[in-house]
Amino acid sequence: MSKNSNDPDLPEYLDVERAAARIRPFVRQTPVLNDPGLDEQLACQLYIKCENLQGSGAFKLRGASNAVARLREQNIAGDVATHSSGNHGASLALAARLDGRKAHVVMPGNASPFKVSAVRDQGGEVYFCQPNQASREAGLQELIAAGHIAVPPYDHSDIIAGQGTASLELIQQVADLDIIVSPVGGGGLIGGTALVAHHYGIKIIGAEPSGAADTANSLQLGHRVDSVNADTIADGLRALVGVRNFALIHELVSEVITVSDDETRQAMILLWRHFRLLVEPSSAVVLAAIRQKPELFRGKKVAAIISGGNITPADWLEVSEWQAEA
Amino acid sequence: MSKNSNDPDLPEYLDVERAAARIRPFVRQTPVLNDPGLDEQLACQLYIKCENLQGSGAFKLRGASNAVARLREQNIAGDVATHSSGNHGASLALAARLDGRKAHVVMPGNASPFKVSAVRDQGGEVYFCQPNQASREAGLQELIAAGHIAVPPYDHSDIIAGQGTASLELIQQVADLDIIVSPVGGGGLIGGTALVAHHYGIKIIGAEPSGAADTANSLQLGHRVDSVNADTIADGLRALVGVRNFALIHELVSEVITVSDDETRQAMILLWRHFRLLVEPSSAVVLAAIRQKPELFRGKKVAAIISGGNITPADWLEVSEWQAEA
Repeated sequence: MSKNSNDPDLPEYLDVERAAARIRPFVRQTPVLNDPGLDEQLACQLYIKCENLQGSGAFKLRGASNAVARLREQNIAGDVATHSSGNHGASLALAARLDGRKAHVVMPGNASPFKVSAVRDQGGEVYFCQPNQASREAGLQELIAAGHIAVPPYDHSDIIAGQGTASLELIQQVADLDIIVSPVGGGGLIGGTALVAHHYGIKIIGAEPSGAADTANSLQLGHRVDSVNADTIADGLRALVGVRNFALIHELVSEVITVSDDETRQAMILLWRHFRLLVEPSSAVVLAAIRQKPELFRGKKVAAIISGGNITPADWLEVSEWQAEA
Repeated sequence: MSKNSNDPDLPEYLDVERAAARIRPFVRQTPVLNDPGLDEQLACQLYIKCENLQGSGAFKLRGASNAVARLREQNIAGDVATHSSGNHGASLALAARLDGRKAHVVMPGNASPFKVSAVRDQGGEVYFCQPNQASREAGLQELIAAGHIAVPPYDHSDIIAGQGTASLELIQQVADLDIIVSPVGGGGLIGGTALVAHHYGIKIIGAEPSGAADTANSLQLGHRVDSVNADTIADGLRALVGVRNFALIHELVSEVITVSDDETRQAMILLWRHFRLLVEPSSAVVLAAIRQKPELFRGKKVAAIISGGNITPADWLEVSEWQAEA
């Protein structure tokens, strides 16, 4: 791994380029879509990078594939393990399967049946635990003690570099971007995105639910807060920002806009209306942020990363509070 | 318009190339997706051409844009008119708006509120009629008498050539295809698709609901039947195949596979599971056909055109009879 001058554990731009070459056989090049009708409403040109159409339904496959490919490069054999209530588990299971390994995933007993079956569909082994951080980590420790290799969901250089490959694709698909908007949860996606955006002189703005605004708060304080009491429909963004992730955000991200769950609901519906895409609330925060602060985006060429589509149609209806038109 | 040696009203391959150049500024290049997990199940390589992500949510924008652009080329001013219970109306309204015209659309009084608002969202004027063919055509005649220009939904050379542009894009996106599978309704999409497939030596197979199998029946009889009593969830495929459309299908299409509504429901769910796409039943028939006759596709490189995504999440749940996994 390349070294950052300040911190040997922080990835840098070239790590993203290397990750892209490494994971190319295992991930989809996802499409970029634009809708002139939505552009008129927003008074900017908006390109959405559809990682909801990535294999496993989320960008997470990029980081997981990079982590697994790095193990192979280093001739490290064995199964992988993680804890996850969502997309990282299924992505790691798929990445491991494509590499001839198995993934062992600790999941809280109250995880959605849909997300549990997504892990199993990819050949992953599920271990239920209590729905709290201590129980999840104890479960993972058992798996590590059994000889499996831990692959964390976001606070890891290989994961961050892998997630950044979405933006490397994006800048080849759309020239002359002014701004990239990324969701902020644990910070894997925005960390990798920021490395790419910074390298190409593109402004990077984060979008975070106001009910889990630990990153926005940390930026205001000038240091990373160490807990978050998440209360938001954006289940993929409830995690506390990681240490490595916050270091990159602090250095490279212009601003993190916080959005309410109602703004996110409206954005989910707009994404369906203009693109016929069902996306997770965690993905819709980017459009909610653009709509909330139009003065930052007016007249600009903007890309927004739609991070995932792992929500059932029934749950989408319930979460978005969508009403049929009369 | 170029002339076909047999019938001056039939489009030929070069009309599709001309249509593609003409409509380029007005339509999206839609993505092509592949899922290795689905390929394993199907024992073939399947590439889906996502016209459900086209502007207006369906391939229909291609034909409508071509018809409107042809009017402009010929300096024919004025509003356009059609009757439609679905995607053609909204597509024509969008194509007309982008050309500074208005579209007048006769719709049956029982059309879904969602489809009515889709026409209006694009600036179209809606006129309600009785839900039968005579009332629809009478309504359209009134609009023509008022001086508007009729743009039919499928049985027209410019429309067929426009719909064919999806496959022209497709063959640039995926090399060395063996087979293209297209839904069959009125025959606009498969007609244009067949022109392209034939030109490049690719086999073309149709997929039709068994509850509206007028094209399969017509092929068996050797001539076009002149009525259909449609009973299928695939609302976009209930129309009787057009005269020009059947002429092209009869000459160029290898086979039309008929599928049951239950096979279509299973395919809708698979498309969601493997690609996170909500598609209309009319789109899912292509995957249903591939699953029904695996011997035709085994080991082949196959593309299937996903024609539209204009179904609300609530209707998708009801139509697909999707059940949450336990």
